[in-house]
Amino acid sequence: MILIKNITVITQNKKREIIKNGALVIKDDIINAIGKSNEIERKYLKKAKKIIDGKGLVVMPGLINTHGHLAMSLLRGYADDMNLEEWWMKHVYPIESKFGRKEVYWGSLLAIIEMIKSGTTCFADFYYYEDEVAKAAQEIGMRGILGCAILDVPTFYYKTTDSAFKKTELLIKKFKNNSLVQIALAPHMFQTASIETYKKSKEMANENGLLLFTHTSETKQENDFSLKKYKQRPIEALAKNNILDEKTILAHCCWLNKKEIKTLAQTGASVAHCPVSNMKLASGIMPLQEMLESGVNISLGTDGVCSNNNLDMIEEMKITALLHKVSKLDPNIADAQTVLDMATINGAKALGLENEIGSLEKNKKADLVILNFEKSHLIPQHNLISHLVYSANGSDVDIVFINGKMIMENRKIKKIDEEKVFNKIKKII
Amino acid sequence: MILIKNITVITQNKKREIIKNGALVIKDDIINAIGKSNEIERKYLKKAKKIIDGKGLVVMPGLINTHGHLAMSLLRGYADDMNLEEWWMKHVYPIESKFGRKEVYWGSLLAIIEMIKSGTTCFADFYYYEDEVAKAAQEIGMRGILGCAILDVPTFYYKTTDSAFKKTELLIKKFKNNSLVQIALAPHMFQTASIETYKKSKEMANENGLLLFTHTSETKQENDFSLKKYKQRPIEALAKNNILDEKTILAHCCWLNKKEIKTLAQTGASVAHCPVSNMKLASGIMPLQEMLESGVNISLGTDGVCSNNNLDMIEEMKITALLHKVSKLDPNIADAQTVLDMATINGAKALGLENEIGSLEKNKKADLVILNFEKSHLIPQHNLISHLVYSANGSDVDIVFINGKMIMENRKIKKIDEEKVFNKIKKII
Repeated sequence: MILIKNITVITQNKKREIIKNGALVIKDDIINAIGKSNEIERKYLKKAKKIIDGKGLVVMPGLINTHGHLAMSLLRGYADDMNLEEWWMKHVYPIESKFGRKEVYWGSLLAIIEMIKSGTTCFADFYYYEDEVAKAAQEIGMRGILGCAILDVPTFYYKTTDSAFKKTELLIKKFKNNSLVQIALAPHMFQTASIETYKKSKEMANENGLLLFTHTSETKQENDFSLKKYKQRPIEALAKNNILDEKTILAHCCWLNKKEIKTLAQTGASVAHCPVSNMKLASGIMPLQEMLESGVNISLGTDGVCSNNNLDMIEEMKITALLHKVSKLDPNIADAQTVLDMATINGAKALGLENEIGSLEKNKKADLVILNFEKSHLIPQHNLISHLVYSANGSDVDIVFINGKMIMENRKIKKIDEEKVFNKIKKII
Repeated sequence: MILIKNITVITQNKKREIIKNGALVIKDDIINAIGKSNEIERKYLKKAKKIIDGKGLVVMPGLINTHGHLAMSLLRGYADDMNLEEWWMKHVYPIESKFGRKEVYWGSLLAIIEMIKSGTTCFADFYYYEDEVAKAAQEIGMRGILGCAILDVPTFYYKTTDSAFKKTELLIKKFKNNSLVQIALAPHMFQTASIETYKKSKEMANENGLLLFTHTSETKQENDFSLKKYKQRPIEALAKNNILDEKTILAHCCWLNKKEIKTLAQTGASVAHCPVSNMKLASGIMPLQEMLESGVNISLGTDGVCSNNNLDMIEEMKITALLHKVSKLDPNIADAQTVLDMATINGAKALGLENEIGSLEKNKKADLVILNFEKSHLIPQHNLISHLVYSANGSDVDIVFINGKMIMENRKIKKIDEEKVFNKIKKII
């Protein structure tokens, strides 16, 4: 039993309570108690095996990164300041096609280290060799939902669509009932996966009670492709083929019209908003406000390092707020609380884990992040939610718990020698 | 004599050279030598009183923040997610009007600590009680150009415009030939300062060889005000009255037309671009690309903490690049090198200090920042300029030199007890 006392608790519970002089008790993988420090201490001080004094610290739910490609961390800064097609075809794909198991493992390990160090405790990945991603996640103790990218074109991981499905089937068997790792279906995008591949993916997802990830309406080109091939916009084609429901997460969705937004809201599909990637690749601006008003569940994602170029969800929150305010010339929208919700409880909802993670509440999993707020850029403290979104950055995270285990303490990840990982990455490059 | 050896040097010199295994020698306030580490070591290793081993580190010119209001750090997170008018009239101004000497001193000290800790070595301030700002800057050893805000309405610092000019005159006398602090004229903005006040400010600036700071074309409302009052847009009115020249820095400039951009380029006036503030207050998007193409000198500024809500110029660089790419749907513009120039050498040029600071070159002032690049979010290192702009954040800064003096080492500011400052700020609040 671990007691965290004298700490400010940003609960993200239904009432969005902030508990000053709060405390939390972790038992096994669960938040066993939460409340005012004096009350919690009275009950648990003697029973606690470890006590963390939270003076000057703030605890919040671990951030949930709902869209990324972990191993692309190897390509950080490899190709910038060019459009998506050139970026992908001339730079990223040629080097990525030389990746194998080793590259995916070490690239994912690096990404997981980076995510934990900036406060992310759960990620959605969308790539190849997902058993290697799972290995990296389990070694560190990170929570992840992993989808093997399914394309109808040969990749460095498989030659045929059938083979991609077979690899996914094996992953599903291997990670059934795993406490940290779940598998998702991940048809890639309209230009690389046919609607038949989407349908087969959804069938396999339904049979196994799994999520489906995909990229949708990232660029105008993608919408044009869909209109030419299917005489329908992507969301219409997906809806017509029963791909959209509460177990579907669409990344990007920059190019939606009103009807598509309504369809998303009706089907209950979630959208993983990736503003930094969309801005850096100049893909477009997701119509956040219209989507929120229609009731679409919006979570946040960093996308891969290669189009970001980091995995800092705290930075992603700030840029989310800023982008939508200026794009509508309305400073009232995308307020700090709305954006924090996207990075926490909405992410949990998107992943079907809203009863497990995304807020600090009794009996939820102990996935939590402790930040040091005694820093020049976080003083004074008129409004903690504002500070988290607008003033903080990932380096303010000091301690991370995932599934009840302390994964990082004083910015040192416990199970991994970071320097060794860095040296290995440099050798691979 | 201080030797920094075995370090990667981002020079920002005319060729924009990056020296791997480089070295720098600091003598008094000056960069005495710069080049390959083996050559520099051969000459200076024995003479050096202090040697810094730069393994895994990167040294760059100190960042130059060309627009801000330091003491507003006291209002961090005090009012967010509302429009400029409500923000200013209902929230910021009522509390700000209670500020006095003490508040300006401590607020400025906090802001300077924050700036140094995120790699800024020179700032432009625009506020009240500038002698207190100067006091804070000199105590820490920070470089600053300070303008007393001149308004035609009473403020908490003076009652009349004349009094504002008198206070500025005293400042000019007090800080003549100061090595760290210079004074500028700072008429506030069109809604609060008449064109006569602008003219008188420029005269006083010219008489003393000083810069003139002002806010221009921040909002559409401001342009409308100018059109109504002067039958001219702000830039037209400023140009007609000879306010614009190479010693003028205009903050914001979101609402410019093509003719105004041409005027700016012709007069040689600089623009302090503040994208985060403009986005957060939803003021508008400065036409960066058109301005660069016309040859306008663009530097960067954070604006006050109250509309940012931090002073991290590294974050400001990333958001600059992202904003302009997405706003034009063109990922090629605002590339990493262009943005780094804005935060360094263009800032020096705006402040008339391009022969002193803004790049690491022999005989320039030793204003430099050393970052630790051995971190998970900065590995691997395909492109250092990309990493600085897109992957790093202010917390990666380890060591700061200003005017040849080591101001921060291992993230600890030498001359100030930060905790004491934080406690004082909390008391004031």
